[in-house]
Amino acid sequence: MEKIKAGVIGATGYAGVELVRLLLSHPNVELAAISSKSFEGQDIADIYPSLHNILQMVLCGQEETIQKSDVVFGSLPHGLSEQFARMCVDQNKVYIDLGADFRLYDEADYQQWYKLSYNDKALHELSVYAMPEVNREEIKGKKIIGNPGCYPTSISLGLMPLLKAGLVEENSIIIDSKSGVTGAGRGLSQNTHYPDCNEAFSPYKIASHRHTPEIEQNLSRMAGKKVTVTFVPHLLPVNRGIVSTMYMRLKETQTLAKLHALYESAYQNEPFVRVLPQGEIANLKNVKYSNYCDISLHLDERTNRVIVVSAIDNMVKGAAGQAIQNMNLVFGLQETTGLMMIPPAF
Amino acid sequence: MEKIKAGVIGATGYAGVELVRLLLSHPNVELAAISSKSFEGQDIADIYPSLHNILQMVLCGQEETIQKSDVVFGSLPHGLSEQFARMCVDQNKVYIDLGADFRLYDEADYQQWYKLSYNDKALHELSVYAMPEVNREEIKGKKIIGNPGCYPTSISLGLMPLLKAGLVEENSIIIDSKSGVTGAGRGLSQNTHYPDCNEAFSPYKIASHRHTPEIEQNLSRMAGKKVTVTFVPHLLPVNRGIVSTMYMRLKETQTLAKLHALYESAYQNEPFVRVLPQGEIANLKNVKYSNYCDISLHLDERTNRVIVVSAIDNMVKGAAGQAIQNMNLVFGLQETTGLMMIPPAF
Amino acid sequence: MEKIKAGVIGATGYAGVELVRLLLSHPNVELAAISSKSFEGQDIADIYPSLHNILQMVLCGQEETIQKSDVVFGSLPHGLSEQFARMCVDQNKVYIDLGADFRLYDEADYQQWYKLSYNDKALHELSVYAMPEVNREEIKGKKIIGNPGCYPTSISLGLMPLLKAGLVEENSIIIDSKSGVTGAGRGLSQNTHYPDCNEAFSPYKIASHRHTPEIEQNLSRMAGKKVTVTFVPHLLPVNRGIVSTMYMRLKETQTLAKLHALYESAYQNEPFVRVLPQGEIANLKNVKYSNYCDISLHLDERTNRVIVVSAIDNMVKGAAGQAIQNMNLVFGLQETTGLMMIPPAF
Amino acid sequence: MEKIKAGVIGATGYAGVELVRLLLSHPNVELAAISSKSFEGQDIADIYPSLHNILQMVLCGQEETIQKSDVVFGSLPHGLSEQFARMCVDQNKVYIDLGADFRLYDEADYQQWYKLSYNDKALHELSVYAMPEVNREEIKGKKIIGNPGCYPTSISLGLMPLLKAGLVEENSIIIDSKSGVTGAGRGLSQNTHYPDCNEAFSPYKIASHRHTPEIEQNLSRMAGKKVTVTFVPHLLPVNRGIVSTMYMRLKETQTLAKLHALYESAYQNEPFVRVLPQGEIANLKNVKYSNYCDISLHLDERTNRVIVVSAIDNMVKGAAGQAIQNMNLVFGLQETTGLMMIPPAF
Repeated sequence: MEKIKAGVIGATGYAGVELVRLLLSHPNVELAAISSKSFEGQDIADIYPSLHNILQMVLCGQEETIQKSDVVFGSLPHGLSEQFARMCVDQNKVYIDLGADFRLYDEADYQQWYKLSYNDKALHELSVYAMPEVNREEIKGKKIIGNPGCYPTSISLGLMPLLKAGLVEENSIIIDSKSGVTGAGRGLSQNTHYPDCNEAFSPYKIASHRHTPEIEQNLSRMAGKKVTVTFVPHLLPVNRGIVSTMYMRLKETQTLAKLHALYESAYQNEPFVRVLPQGEIANLKNVKYSNYCDISLHLDERTNRVIVVSAIDNMVKGAAGQAIQNMNLVFGLQETTGLMMIPPAF
Repeated sequence: MEKIKAGVIGATGYAGVELVRLLLSHPNVELAAISSKSFEGQDIADIYPSLHNILQMVLCGQEETIQKSDVVFGSLPHGLSEQFARMCVDQNKVYIDLGADFRLYDEADYQQWYKLSYNDKALHELSVYAMPEVNREEIKGKKIIGNPGCYPTSISLGLMPLLKAGLVEENSIIIDSKSGVTGAGRGLSQNTHYPDCNEAFSPYKIASHRHTPEIEQNLSRMAGKKVTVTFVPHLLPVNRGIVSTMYMRLKETQTLAKLHALYESAYQNEPFVRVLPQGEIANLKNVKYSNYCDISLHLDERTNRVIVVSAIDNMVKGAAGQAIQNMNLVFGLQETTGLMMIPPAF
Repeated sequence: MEKIKAGVIGATGYAGVELVRLLLSHPNVELAAISSKSFEGQDIADIYPSLHNILQMVLCGQEETIQKSDVVFGSLPHGLSEQFARMCVDQNKVYIDLGADFRLYDEADYQQWYKLSYNDKALHELSVYAMPEVNREEIKGKKIIGNPGCYPTSISLGLMPLLKAGLVEENSIIIDSKSGVTGAGRGLSQNTHYPDCNEAFSPYKIASHRHTPEIEQNLSRMAGKKVTVTFVPHLLPVNRGIVSTMYMRLKETQTLAKLHALYESAYQNEPFVRVLPQGEIANLKNVKYSNYCDISLHLDERTNRVIVVSAIDNMVKGAAGQAIQNMNLVFGLQETTGLMMIPPAF
Repeated sequence: MEKIKAGVIGATGYAGVELVRLLLSHPNVELAAISSKSFEGQDIADIYPSLHNILQMVLCGQEETIQKSDVVFGSLPHGLSEQFARMCVDQNKVYIDLGADFRLYDEADYQQWYKLSYNDKALHELSVYAMPEVNREEIKGKKIIGNPGCYPTSISLGLMPLLKAGLVEENSIIIDSKSGVTGAGRGLSQNTHYPDCNEAFSPYKIASHRHTPEIEQNLSRMAGKKVTVTFVPHLLPVNRGIVSTMYMRLKETQTLAKLHALYESAYQNEPFVRVLPQGEIANLKNVKYSNYCDISLHLDERTNRVIVVSAIDNMVKGAAGQAIQNMNLVFGLQETTGLMMIPPAF
């Protein structure tokens, strides 16, 4: 089989360079081109010395990247993807957007949370928000892919079976998420300066993070009704990983065994979702550098609440890994190709 | 004024050695004796080289420690404090217990959560659970002090004004706490082994931590009715500090300004509680190595929930610092004596 | 081609579980059996939850592991490997020892530094100390492999070209190495307890580490004369990686360009040694989770010293990765098979 | 006694805010004014929330700071201090420079390493390079103080007794230092961005760090002859602390006991230098947040080298603490006043 030519726009951001790493290990992919606004003309190994002797490739322009590729991954700030998606569509290429521009079905949500509009509305009709465990069939053959956000991935996978089964009070959901610092990207800021961030911990963007509408969009579809959540992210002094601790009230009393069986059944055929044995607790260390999402279930019988803990690697399942999973689906490859990395024990 | 002779039982545990450090800097205290089961006969500076040239003191036995002291701090596993409290009472000394044996007013709670009983019931009538910001007047002159747990301190201070004012639905409280690893003590365990704990994160003892009844005891007293909470602690890869993120539904809509004013008023005379300006968020880095509790308030208007974030140093305000604050109260000293350490910026 | 059946003795130690991870990704290997003294009878995924859904394999006994395998990796404390090597030899299997028992050619060194003797001397005549970049040809077809230590790997690769070329004063070599905490193993100890190890740093076993004779054995062979070094390891608060900073005096003045050319020439065909461009400095973050050894060269013209910095992942190139590289050589596979993991950028 | 009015120029840098913290705890000092180029007009607690409720002080201009103060601490990039030192001298105030502008006696060194000249040469005749353990008497009563650099402090204290006694070959000294990230300051840079700095380690400015001439100036004075060293600093993923591992050849064989006695004798009256018992090793965790310098001595008998390990807190003994120690000397206070902070055990 001929290899798929893949390009990455925004290749020197954290998600971008993680894409590069994973694409280089993908047996059906040839990395065709990479671009970077900030470092155009430089060799990527000069920016990321981890790639020395592995990849000698000059960062070119965005249009050149598209021209050389069959599939283009865009890892960009919001508001920049429509133009590249348009170019891809016009050249009959696939565009996989790791940013926020193709995640929200309702433009009003985008306007409210991102203060921007959908300018090229036709693109959004061609696109699909793509979380394989949720809507695998819709993804196949699509040309524009909205790759999910990191927090929404950890949360949606964690809550899907409960919401689909209608077992929890939809207005009782509270989500306390903690993310490693790569989630804040490669750009410098005081709160990610090492001495300010190390031996520190706090929430940020309390009940106002832009992933909120995407989370609610997903949960509402699962529940079949409008779901509004309280979502509070925290910055965790580790490089990688997200743990979401999710609290909600059960409509009726349930045994943990029954809830556990529900999850095992829901995810029994999912290659990347691991429902942990009863008594174990999801920990980000067990999924680092892998495409797995670990989920553990817990009951607070005293308050009739169920507590779900999920853990992903924000850079893999929460970004580059899921994007490649989506690419596999779009191109008719085995979904797990290039993604079966075993998480190291430490 | 003659100095108070202070002794520490369990001086080589983490809370114990923190007590030693703070007592050595207290202007009205003379460290009279220290004991350790594991290291009796050794010099404490051999166990903790940070004390070289500062404290040359041999770890003696528990009874000797009591004999030499006016006030005895016990930093021990639960179930061991009654005997030392009894010795202190019989010798007319003050016993300040940093463990769990004098925290719960209702013995049934102790039996349920610790699987032990109060054997010397008279002691418990002499004792007081002592959180200065909550019941300062009750503490003065008492002989047996139940020093609060670290999580309950961060939570009780964070929620007191709201509960006293009756503004929140008492059965809606969810507490997601994150603690630095010193909270697990000096004892070795696999999950606090550096490579297992570093670059890792997860909850533990979900909805089953032994601090739960103490939390509920405190919140119930504040609310004037039985409060049951969902409490989930997490192990945070930092040495020190606790951040509690607390979620609850408002009975009626409130403005953030009004809630903020409530907190500022409640804590305006408290030397160790800092209500942060609106818009700031409590972070453990700002209270490390100090006796402060930082509190920030946030509103999720979309769900009518209030979110309170509190941060303390688990070893100071959450253990040794608060114990000294209680000692100051018992002995009629200025409450802040020896405790005005300025938290370092990093 | 039929797959090689591989077994791991000591599979629940850190090097052992890293072997398991890498062997599972090796295209020509079938993991046949794993053993553990401490956890015999348990599933390895219960010890290392990172392996959930990936490997369901019960830890069996040592002899059973050997019986089921073509090649046996022993990851054991020193003094235990002769018996397993003997079993392997008698059953015509390959034994690759990750411990210290087959590293020292001169038994006197072993006696001096490990206080033990070679009991089954015939084994040592069959064995080879195996560092592919140093003695690749000797390794092929051997039955007992002494896999190098982590520090000696980082040091030997860092110094080989200089010593072979005879450019440095052999008695001037000072080696200051820093290792991540996984180097101390999975066993618990106070100095690897998180709060004692985090935000801490110091040397240990100053000029007395047991890797010293292995380092000197290697450097002496390269130099063609007896080399004695000062070697000081340090414990670094990271999980993985070793950086060795090595100082030595040049016999004659050299330009950095010439030294650099010497290294580039020496390693031009080595798949796992990366000589960094002049001006760059080796950093462990660029080799983590990979089998690479990065080397940078620096000149202190003021003192006529050359400074070599090398970086490896102590668990991969310093243990499990190199062991598989040796297995590939022994079995006539392409040396890089299963080892081309790209180091992540973070 | 009337309090000394102290001002800090550059108060929002890391050394500046550490000065603020320590000065606020000094019994004989009143913090009179603080300045910051970047944040003039803002309250310092808005920049450093750790100071909430502790210090409410607006950052003013540099001249105003000088006017309000008896002693001015300048914590500035090199090249900026002469003007402020001049103002202080003209107004009969004391200027303590934490930068590099008054550290080098020989202007040629300054020109070579900093590419600048001494413009106001008279100031340098009035100034003294001030390391109390080295030249205490010269400091008293001086008006311009060159406060030592962090690395030179750890190194000079570590080597002084050996060099003064003439026991080591002066041209054999190799210094491998490791510094916490606060040493790089508050300014943002890619290599101090958390994900680039965490789980990373490497040397920097190899044999070319600007502290080299200061180190050599100090060691040369101690040795009574020109000393040239190889000095390599490393960036350590901790917030605070410097460990220097120093290697040198003994002129003649010595016992460790004799060397140890030499150090104990040399430092027996020094309040801030702790010579560790034989067998212990200096670790930065034991001096964090304190003004101590811990020193341990080790012998490599195989190579006739002595190895000295020293540990300081780079922000205290390596900057703000030593500056206050110098202030105490200048103003005739007890040298230890305000500096007897006990290092916490964790």
